Parts: sequence; C-alpha cells; structure tokens
Amino acid sequence: MRAVRYHDCGEVNVLRVEDCERPEPAHDEVLVEMRAASINPIDAILREQGAPRLPKTTGSDIAGVVAAAGADVDNHEEGDRVFATGLHVGRFGGGSFADFAVVPTDLLAPLPDGVDFEEGAAVALVGVTVWRAMVHHAHLEPGATAFIHGGNGGVGHVAVGFAAALGATPVATARPEYHDAVRGLGAAAVIDYTRDDLTEAAVEATGGADLVLDALPGTYFDTDVAVAGFGGDVSVLAGDEATLSDVPAARSKELDIHMMSMSNLATHPDAPDIGPILDRLGRLVAEDRLEVVIDRTYPLEDAAQAHRAIMEESFLGKIVLTP
Amino acid sequence: MRAVRYHDCGEVNVLRVEDCERPEPAHDEVLVEMRAASINPIDAILREQGAPRLPKTTGSDIAGVVAAAGADVDNHEEGDRVFATGLHVGRFGGGSFADFAVVPTDLLAPLPDGVDFEEGAAVALVGVTVWRAMVHHAHLEPGATAFIHGGNGGVGHVAVGFAAALGATPVATARPEYHDAVRGLGAAAVIDYTRDDLTEAAVEATGGADLVLDALPGTYFDTDVAVAGFGGDVSVLAGDEATLSDVPAARSKELDIHMMSMSNLATHPDAPDIGPILDRLGRLVAEDRLEVVIDRTYPLEDAAQAHRAIMEESFLGKIVLTP
Repeated sequence: MRAVRYHDCGEVNVLRVEDCERPEPAHDEVLVEMRAASINPIDAILREQGAPRLPKTTGSDIAGVVAAAGADVDNHEEGDRVFATGLHVGRFGGGSFADFAVVPTDLLAPLPDGVDFEEGAAVALVGVTVWRAMVHHAHLEPGATAFIHGGNGGVGHVAVGFAAALGATPVATARPEYHDAVRGLGAAAVIDYTRDDLTEAAVEATGGADLVLDALPGTYFDTDVAVAGFGGDVSVLAGDEATLSDVPAARSKELDIHMMSMSNLATHPDAPDIGPILDRLGRLVAEDRLEVVIDRTYPLEDAAQAHRAIMEESFLGKIVLTP
Repeated sequence: MRAVRYHDCGEVNVLRVEDCERPEPAHDEVLVEMRAASINPIDAILREQGAPRLPKTTGSDIAGVVAAAGADVDNHEEGDRVFATGLHVGRFGGGSFADFAVVPTDLLAPLPDGVDFEEGAAVALVGVTVWRAMVHHAHLEPGATAFIHGGNGGVGHVAVGFAAALGATPVATARPEYHDAVRGLGAAAVIDYTRDDLTEAAVEATGGADLVLDALPGTYFDTDVAVAGFGGDVSVLAGDEATLSDVPAARSKELDIHMMSMSNLATHPDAPDIGPILDRLGRLVAEDRLEVVIDRTYPLEDAAQAHRAIMEESFLGKIVLTP
C-alpha cells in the first residue's frame, strides 16, 4: 500500500509517497481502508519539528471502511463506515495519509449515513477540539456568547457552527472575503481581524464574551482578556509563548483560562475517549445541524501541497486528501 | 466613634485615626461593634493606589457583635457574634478599622462559640479566598496534591490547613524558619523557596500537583506550569503581569488557569454569597479542623504599623487589630 511518510523532520520535501506493507491491526485496533483524510496544522508542525517515532506516516484524521478488526474488537466489523482522529500523536508511527491505517477503537466512531467520507475526515480533529474547548472546558450554555478568532479556519469555522448548534451566539473574526460565508455558518457578527480597534469591536459585538476561543499561533492573550466578560472562559489551543500584560484585569474578571492541546486525548489514559465525541459530531453533521466546509481536495500523491497550504494559505474550512 | 481613614491615597502616613459619626445600617445591613479586624495586602494596595470612594475607612475583615440591624434583617439581632469580609471593595467607604462598621448581610456569618473574635477576623478574607480557589475553581479532591506558594503567609497558611482538612496533600514553600510551623499546619513537605532547584524539588515532592495556588505578587507562572500535573489547576490570586514562556507545555498538560480576585465576590451580583462560605469556615475553625495563626495584635491606633508590616515583613499567619 502507499503511505506518505517522512524519515527525518524538515520542510515539505521530506515527505515521500512510499510503498509499505499493509499493517495488521492489534487485538484492540481496526484496519481502516482510507477514503478521505484531512490536513491539520499539527501534521505540518510535527513534520517540521520532529515526530517521536520515525519513520512517521503523516495525517491525523481518517474516514473510510473497516477492512479488518482485531481479535478483541466486537463493535466494528468489515465493511463498516467509520471515522477517527488522533493518529498524529507519538503513540503512532502510522497516520492517515495512506491506503490503510490501523486505529485503536477509542479513537473511532461509526460514520453515519448521509455524511461523506470527506466530511468525516474533515470534521474529526477540529470537531473534537472544539467540543472539548466549548463543552468540556467552558461548559458553554445556550444564550451565551462565544468570541472565535479565525472564524474561517479549520477549527474556527466548526466552532462557529457548533456554538450556533448548541444555542450560543458566535462572534468571529475573519478577513472580509470570508464574512458572508462565516455568517452563513451561524455567526451573529464577523469582525475583520486586521482592524485597529479589533478589541473594542469585539467587546461591542459580544457585550463581553462568555467564551473566547483562541486557536491562533500568535499571542492574543491580552485581546482575549479584554473581550471576555466577568466569569468568562478563555480556551487556548495554540501558541508558543504568551504574555498577560494586565493580570489584575484578568483577575478582576474571574477568568478561567483553559490550556489545551489537540493531542492530549489520544495520549492520556485518564482523558475522555475520542470515540463518543466523534459519534455525537457525526450525528450533528448527519442532521445538518453542523456544517463542515471543504475548501479543496488533493489526491494522496499531492500530500506535500496540502502540507504547504495548511501553513501558508488562507482559506475557508478544511483541505482534504483522497486516495 | 474612631475610624482609621485616608482622604488621599499614598504612603502609610495618609492613615488618620479620626472621630466620625457612628453609621446607621441600611435596611439590609447590620451595624457591627468591632472586636477584631485583620490586615490584608489589599488594604495596603488600595491605600497606595487609591480607593474608588474617598474618604475610605481601611480594613476588609471584621469580627464583633451586632449593635443594630436594618429593617429587613431578620436573621441577625443585637448581641449576636458575627464575622464578615469584603469591606475593602469600592462598594463601601466604610471598612473594618473602626469602632463600628455597617455590613451587608450577604458578607456576614455567625461566629461560632469557641472561635475568638481575633480568629474570626483573621480567617475571613483569606479563608474565603482559599475556599474559592480550592473548592469553587479547582474542585480539589481528597487524595489530591496541592502546591502552595508562601505557606507561611496569610493566604498560604490557611490554604495548607484547608487542603489538609479536605483530605488533600499540601506541599508548600516557605523560608526555613517557618518549616516546622507549616508542617504543623498539615503540610506533607515544605520547600525553601530560595532554592535554585525550587521547581524540581516541587515536582518531586508533589509528583505533579493537582492544584497550584499562586498568591505571590511576582510572576511564578512558569514554575506553576512546571509543577502542575496533567489536568491540573492553577489558581492565580495576585500579580500584575505574567509571562507563560512555554505555552505548549501548559497546553500539553491541559491546565486550567483560574484568575481570581479577592474583591469579586463582594462586587458582582452573580458571584456566590460570602456568608455561606464564612459559615462553613467558622465551623471548621470551631471544630479544630482548620487553624488560623495570629502572629501579633495591634490596637486600632497602631493601624499604620499593621499597614506597614503587611507589605514589608515576613511572618507566619495573620496580623490582627483590636479596639
């Protein structure tokens, strides 16, 4: 089978489409025949900075058909449509950019009828991340206001739709060319993030946000604190360093700041299973209560283009790979 | 009656013991005859940086006897022993460093028999703060480990005792001269905070803390993140600016950082009432399950000494004022 792998970390050109042996599922794994995979920034970051296990097959998300099930697997059988995420973590050498991937059952859920493989692969990692940020950490409630940085991005556009689906009011930032589309996903207001008065505009549009979702690599901590209302939650999904210039302001608002990593669910035994979250995300997509947008699709051979695009290009939604 | 007031913010010498008219309680307030008050850093900070309403009577905490009750007060009557906190906030011009103070009933609880007025005044603000940090925000559980900066301080020494009282394991920092005393309050280990390897020692002693309580004015954010374990809570009670040098480390631990201010409970209508928390603190002290340490006592006339000591001196526990 083909797999897109790297043997050393580095630029996009370390990626190779290689011919590998088809893996065998362990007792608690299923072998999935890939019909769609999606690209996430973490895939490119790992490729640049180094994965714990090399060679590494790139790719976190997969949707496909069960080709074989391990000896202890009794709830998935050959031919089942499934989707999964978490394959980027150090636990795995094998990711989703391959004709087949082995997946532990805690990372997997059935893909409902009426949900494309492309949609399943596209929603998996970003959807689980948004779920954890908004539900598990921030306990976002109907009628609450959520301020979402980058409402056209992979995480951001699902966050907008998910906040709307649970009865909250999303306010997002985006470049002007995406404003209509982000409004179409459910945003009550969309703010150009290049505005000088971004913070003031966000405070006005949200009235003080109950939740701020910060998935941007730069440091927006001060904006997050300024936009959050009293008792608000700030979920931080990215970034390398952060400065809180005004700790008393954050304290006077009694803010809860949630530091999150998309990888933790697949690495920590006491973290909640990914499967049940994917299961619910799948239902929301099947019932048209949550939309995942696919900007474009590449064939597996062009995985390097997907890796380049995820870090360098601006687009709406997700980029998907197919066999 | 006498009141220790300031008409302008500034150094300790702005404090004046003045002769004022005894206040009248409003419909939902009680008039408390002060038997003890305690000094907290916030009192000195407000005096230095300016209170919203001037002139301001200094002092946040009070314990005493009800001298009169407002028309709508039916659960407190003349002669009742009570204690209260929150009198430092902008809502009040009148604080606790006076012969009498008016107190809204939501800031008040009965002082149980067997609890001194001095103990009641000493435990009030720091106890409510610790309760919120450990119970409301961090949901500290029995068997969990709490790392407490400054285990000899006003907040810290109550935090050590409170963590032990709820079945958790406190590990604290303190100067060597306080180690025995802090161990006596319930700390499983005490670490000299001047050690070069403070972080490593704290990680070893806690095994990765479930809760870090950071009540220090400097920025210990990086230490907090390093000492916290996976899924840990960091409660930040002080500080002006903070830098998280390693956001990915904090994210990979899935930390929840709680920014808290001791003033919020008394200023925000949707925050929990102080009274019920004080009520429980009083029971713990009455039952000898929580100890509050009083380092020394000054008469009201020497309030300036208390203001100076709280910012400049190192001591164990609390400093109390009496009439």
